[in-house]
Amino acid sequence: MSAADAPVETALARYAQAVRAKDVDAFAALYTEDVQVFDMWGTWSLHGIEAWRGMADSWFDSLGDEQVLVTWRDVQSSVADALAIGNATLTYTAVSAAGQTLRALDNRITLALRRQAGEWKIFHEHTSAPIEHATLQAILTRERA
Amino acid sequence: MSAADAPVETALARYAQAVRAKDVDAFAALYTEDVQVFDMWGTWSLHGIEAWRGMADSWFDSLGDEQVLVTWRDVQSSVADALAIGNATLTYTAVSAAGQTLRALDNRITLALRRQAGEWKIFHEHTSAPIEHATLQAILTRERA
Repeated sequence: MSAADAPVETALARYAQAVRAKDVDAFAALYTEDVQVFDMWGTWSLHGIEAWRGMADSWFDSLGDEQVLVTWRDVQSSVADALAIGNATLTYTAVSAAGQTLRALDNRITLALRRQAGEWKIFHEHTSAPIEHATLQAILTRERA
Repeated sequence: MSAADAPVETALARYAQAVRAKDVDAFAALYTEDVQVFDMWGTWSLHGIEAWRGMADSWFDSLGDEQVLVTWRDVQSSVADALAIGNATLTYTAVSAAGQTLRALDNRITLALRRQAGEWKIFHEHTSAPIEHATLQAILTRERA
């Protein structure tokens, strides 16, 4: 399936590949120069590919010899002309060098992409987990239907 | 400014009006029947206008004689054909019947709209606050630049 057919699904697949390979260049290549991210962790808003690439660099470095497998479900997407939008639930599973599952968490992702020079790039990404009202704690695992 | 010119900005203005008036019908009229919401609070994903209308009903009921004023900044939006996407930072300020500010919190919103029968409606909404990595607590106030 090519990005022309399904830019959101293709972007998710490339995102998972880049994260699994801890490949910062492949990761950054998914995004526009002016990308704006509402990330789940710590920061209200990140602007520009350098800031976002820096996040990926720190993340991948922190993993040591672990790998992170990203899977997704419940993808919805819409495309009009050179604009695409989609959302899904992602699961991030950390696996040891020996192949053992170490931990997993879910998040919700909304992606907006534009086609520029024939290529789809993410210009806005929003990831989050819902917050428990009583405790203000994040809920990091989505109940399975 | 009409929805034809700026569907995202118009939707935010109508959202603020509906919340201020605690008008569930005006609130529900902003959304498609099949709306899918990644809400900041409690639930991973809400599907359909009845579920979302029920959230608004409970919220407005819980306010008693308080009012909630919604303001926004840093709006970005893109429109292509019958698809629009935008994002902003919102501030929700609760005000007493006497006009006193009681509390305030911020969130991040991403909206996707489609034009159907000449009207722009929100079919996907994603709201969140970032999460502190060390404590897993939500950060409910955005630092001012």
